[in-house]
Amino acid sequence: MKKGKSAVVLLSGGLDSTTVLAMAMNQGYECHALTFGYGQRHCSEIDAAKRIAQHHGVAEHLISTIDLSLWGGSALTDEIDVPKDGVVEGIPITYVPARNTIFLSHALGFAEAIGARDIFIGVNAVDYSGYPDCRSEFVQAFEQLANLATKAGVEGDRFTIHAPLLHMSKVEIIMQGTQLGVDYSMTQSCYDPDNAGRSCGKCDACRLRDAAFSEIENA
Amino acid sequence: MKKGKSAVVLLSGGLDSTTVLAMAMNQGYECHALTFGYGQRHCSEIDAAKRIAQHHGVAEHLISTIDLSLWGGSALTDEIDVPKDGVVEGIPITYVPARNTIFLSHALGFAEAIGARDIFIGVNAVDYSGYPDCRSEFVQAFEQLANLATKAGVEGDRFTIHAPLLHMSKVEIIMQGTQLGVDYSMTQSCYDPDNAGRSCGKCDACRLRDAAFSEIENA
Repeated sequence: MKKGKSAVVLLSGGLDSTTVLAMAMNQGYECHALTFGYGQRHCSEIDAAKRIAQHHGVAEHLISTIDLSLWGGSALTDEIDVPKDGVVEGIPITYVPARNTIFLSHALGFAEAIGARDIFIGVNAVDYSGYPDCRSEFVQAFEQLANLATKAGVEGDRFTIHAPLLHMSKVEIIMQGTQLGVDYSMTQSCYDPDNAGRSCGKCDACRLRDAAFSEIENA
Repeated sequence: MKKGKSAVVLLSGGLDSTTVLAMAMNQGYECHALTFGYGQRHCSEIDAAKRIAQHHGVAEHLISTIDLSLWGGSALTDEIDVPKDGVVEGIPITYVPARNTIFLSHALGFAEAIGARDIFIGVNAVDYSGYPDCRSEFVQAFEQLANLATKAGVEGDRFTIHAPLLHMSKVEIIMQGTQLGVDYSMTQSCYDPDNAGRSCGKCDACRLRDAAFSEIENA
């Protein structure tokens, strides 16, 4: 338990980041959640993030607006259709160039400004092996950068990037979150929900999520 | 000469980044300039950046709005006075937590999306030795991260972070820029200009700039 220590938690409003928030809270961190409006088509996840942050009793929840659709290059931010024919090998078109680098760099600025030295991110290398910025090499490289880039880091007050889901399966994540009181009906995973925020059931995020819940129900 | 190759150039509208833009243009890059509105108090530098980008004939100039004043922690983004009593030792209060990490991460996303693999930044370790994210260790760590974080990087189409001013003095930078046709009257260095965009003449940025011009005039 690290009572009184504060952490910045990247919270998208999805299944993974909500579980990470519950894990950080359970470890005794005072959590400062950070959510991005980044020009994504699935912006109902921001509303989900607000409800989740409140439900879990975070110390603070900031919504940072950045516009990654300025340059596009992804089905999540551009006028490219989100694939719905099933999960394929390789890096999918839903990859957003440098997204996790951008998210972590903002989290780093936030953390340094408020005196937090722990940053939590819900990246997961098992189900989304296609995303380069969901791998442990990436997380390690960012932590190294963070400690060279900042006043706190060079003064020896080091940052730690926590990615507790890195090697967990979707099923393990949901079972862990359920133990910690996560209400997954509040989370939003879909890449392409309708205007009412209803999931499409066909994109990769929906397929992986639904498969995991089916597996748990049928176990 | 790298004719036809495109590059992303971080352009603040100040003396250093304008010189870097001129250097990248001179090396034959098709330049895509990227400027941030980040809640800084010296936002007249954005107008300067627009004029400079046009003057140098960039292929494209994007203004990205991000809000680093959400969490403050710096005299440039917060209600803290900009020091005007002269340059002191150590990391100054004008340090913005993780700013160059944030700028480079957005530049990386932009570059990957448009197929550019070269990113230019005007960091300088000589005059601003106090800023941790203006050192060569930082630039190297970011380049390493960039090649782990991106689809292009992991596929072997590597990114290069160019920081050509890293070890140049302010006088050397101005002499180099002047040779390349930079009009320094277009640039804006002041951290705390008045509403009309006039420099204060007393902040660190003004002092370092004015001292360099005096040295050149008196040489």
